[in-house]
Amino acid sequence: MTSLGDLAARGDLRGVRERLDELDVTEIVEIVAAELGRRGGGAAASLFRSLPKDLAIAVFEALEPPLQGDLVGRLRDETEIKVLLEGLDPDDRAELLEELPAKVTKRLLSGLSPGERSMTAALLGFPAGSVGRRMSPEVATVPETVTVGEALERVRREGDRAETIYLVPVVGEGRRLVGVVSLRRLLVTGRDVPVRDVCAEPVSVLPEDGEETAARTVRENGLIALPVVDHERRLLGVFTVDDAMRALERAESEDSARGGGTEPLRRPYLSAGVLRVVRSRIGWLLGLVVGATLTVTVLDSFEDALEQVVALALFVPLLIGTAGNAGAQAATTVVRAITTDDLRLRDLGRVVGRELATGFLLGAGLAVVGFGPAWWFVGLDIAVVLALTVVAICMLATGTGAAVPLVARAAGVDPAVVSAPFITTFVDATGLIIYFTTATLLLGL
Amino acid sequence: MTSLGDLAARGDLRGVRERLDELDVTEIVEIVAAELGRRGGGAAASLFRSLPKDLAIAVFEALEPPLQGDLVGRLRDETEIKVLLEGLDPDDRAELLEELPAKVTKRLLSGLSPGERSMTAALLGFPAGSVGRRMSPEVATVPETVTVGEALERVRREGDRAETIYLVPVVGEGRRLVGVVSLRRLLVTGRDVPVRDVCAEPVSVLPEDGEETAARTVRENGLIALPVVDHERRLLGVFTVDDAMRALERAESEDSARGGGTEPLRRPYLSAGVLRVVRSRIGWLLGLVVGATLTVTVLDSFEDALEQVVALALFVPLLIGTAGNAGAQAATTVVRAITTDDLRLRDLGRVVGRELATGFLLGAGLAVVGFGPAWWFVGLDIAVVLALTVVAICMLATGTGAAVPLVARAAGVDPAVVSAPFITTFVDATGLIIYFTTATLLLGL
Repeated sequence: MTSLGDLAARGDLRGVRERLDELDVTEIVEIVAAELGRRGGGAAASLFRSLPKDLAIAVFEALEPPLQGDLVGRLRDETEIKVLLEGLDPDDRAELLEELPAKVTKRLLSGLSPGERSMTAALLGFPAGSVGRRMSPEVATVPETVTVGEALERVRREGDRAETIYLVPVVGEGRRLVGVVSLRRLLVTGRDVPVRDVCAEPVSVLPEDGEETAARTVRENGLIALPVVDHERRLLGVFTVDDAMRALERAESEDSARGGGTEPLRRPYLSAGVLRVVRSRIGWLLGLVVGATLTVTVLDSFEDALEQVVALALFVPLLIGTAGNAGAQAATTVVRAITTDDLRLRDLGRVVGRELATGFLLGAGLAVVGFGPAWWFVGLDIAVVLALTVVAICMLATGTGAAVPLVARAAGVDPAVVSAPFITTFVDATGLIIYFTTATLLLGL
Repeated sequence: MTSLGDLAARGDLRGVRERLDELDVTEIVEIVAAELGRRGGGAAASLFRSLPKDLAIAVFEALEPPLQGDLVGRLRDETEIKVLLEGLDPDDRAELLEELPAKVTKRLLSGLSPGERSMTAALLGFPAGSVGRRMSPEVATVPETVTVGEALERVRREGDRAETIYLVPVVGEGRRLVGVVSLRRLLVTGRDVPVRDVCAEPVSVLPEDGEETAARTVRENGLIALPVVDHERRLLGVFTVDDAMRALERAESEDSARGGGTEPLRRPYLSAGVLRVVRSRIGWLLGLVVGATLTVTVLDSFEDALEQVVALALFVPLLIGTAGNAGAQAATTVVRAITTDDLRLRDLGRVVGRELATGFLLGAGLAVVGFGPAWWFVGLDIAVVLALTVVAICMLATGTGAAVPLVARAAGVDPAVVSAPFITTFVDATGLIIYFTTATLLLGL
């Protein structure tokens, strides 16, 4: 980065402001985002106010909605806020308004033009995370009765207002979706051909469908936009490829966070206060600690065995660490396959069978490699106990890691929630039972 | 799913074939993919051969490249293979050819038309994972000297061959990229306006740039396509939004796998043999086990303390499990921030400072909640040891979880590789040292 980044990092906003023309929008966005993360964040607002109006709108558009929310909260002048709001597309505006307290939302919505307000309000009527929230109602449609030439003429006229014109929905009576035609197809076809002859069977979604599912449909079919229709197939809007990319990024951030045992931050890391970071993690950590107290109970009930052979304690972290890792591997793979390959409960038998075989091979591999060193280090008996235990707990871990996410999905729980950390904690306790039972039996304790 | 899915799951391909017309392409793709995963996989080839030619091409296109590779390996008839290959876009073909053994690749390339072969070969000349491998050289360009009307005419003529016509690169002498103009802009502008007046400053990438970086550029700027230019700014091709979505999916699959301590499978889970699954995990697991033997050494050196107070052993899994979870949380958050917010080594101090504060608050929270129960269960002395230890190891875990990925990135190692499982194993051993040192000092062992 240039020394301007350093100026900003040092909080020298005057220095930054003097050299604003050296920066492009992305750089200004980064600086504003970083400033919003600092205590107070008032400097962000004052820097932002000093931008020329067009630049301010561009920067505002490029900020992530939670940061837009922060910034709006810090701007005092209502007219200024409304200029920013009106510059946003209805779907982006809906996203921002979700971030604001209800009171502020109401005040701001009341300042929009009636048409704009009703569009935004309509978008806000659908459940959180649904396509309805993200779609754009501004679509260039053509009636099924026109020719390609007439269709092109309509698209050209609406070209400035519509969210996209590259996918053109073809509608029948009552705005019912009868097909779609790409702008490319319209351009390469003779002008006198009826649109009906070149339009294709549409892939579409309902507004209450999840944005992630819709986004996957866009990706898998290589679409530019996906029409959103109601139950009577009336066209409500389109969900465009850039909405899809953002939806997938949100979903991915969420899965990645949950996979690591935290709630997503929903904003850039350095812009989130420490308390917000703590809040995103403490619930998970407490829950996992409560689960982990099981291991205390298990060890307590084997205290006799432990007292007789203290050497058994030496391998507890190694064994449960390995079980945890094997379980995390299986859970990560299966959670990913649930999302991308659509694994379901009916695949449970096949998946668990594969994972048990995998766990057996992994455990056997570790046992073969570790047997010699263990024999040398603690003697033959304990080495045998360790070898048998490692095979058993690897199978336990991979089997559990595979089964739990599939069962969770069937029960309507996000599989990512029950992934690695949850599995690790569960196999810690069960793995200890296997270890000490094997030891008690083989060593005659 | 319908009973057809069950027929396929039972391997009753004859039953499936009789009812092929009930299936759409996606369903046939799923069945072929599942069959390829079964031992032998010969049934997939025979089912595939029985498809009508157009359907076969559509199914082939929709398969993921590793599965295309498997299928090609099982088709004996070379003409048949070449028909499939020629049906693919050059960038998809390059992706498939990467999956095949070099000998097969050479034989197949030799059967393409000279123009097609040189395009594919050119794409294959760039490093793996680069934009050069994924871009499409088939672009509709316009010279900077034409009018909007002439530009539209050119785009219309090339509309069938080009990968996309929605973003039109404007080129000067020697195919140098001077700007870009969207098809939408061309359509809504008067036909006599010079293209030069409506074209915008292009965002572009070099062919050796990583596909993931390019894909993020596409997403962040909401682009339909990104021009790829050489060092003299000569246009080589375009990287389209659907290539970008696929690149991001690949990158995310990889990060998610590494975050769980496995190598990515690079194919649908049920289509990967058990041995392939084992191979994707065994290296990681072995490495982590070797790291975890440190815990044996640490415990061994504290064997005296353990023998004196066996109760200390009871809390080992709980403490290191908690440290592991706190470390995984920090690592997951920071790895994600490295990818999405572009955190760098220069942010190290700020990031580690924040994480130490977070670790302190998390540890203190757990200590407050757990102190009472621990006192009741094992007495005041050990409860104090546990409380102090939990604060210290949470800070150790979050600090390490934050620092290691940043340092790894600066050293050119994929941060995802050193995430959760690596951190967990590291803090297991160090956490034990903290625990037993605190205990030895406070309990006077």
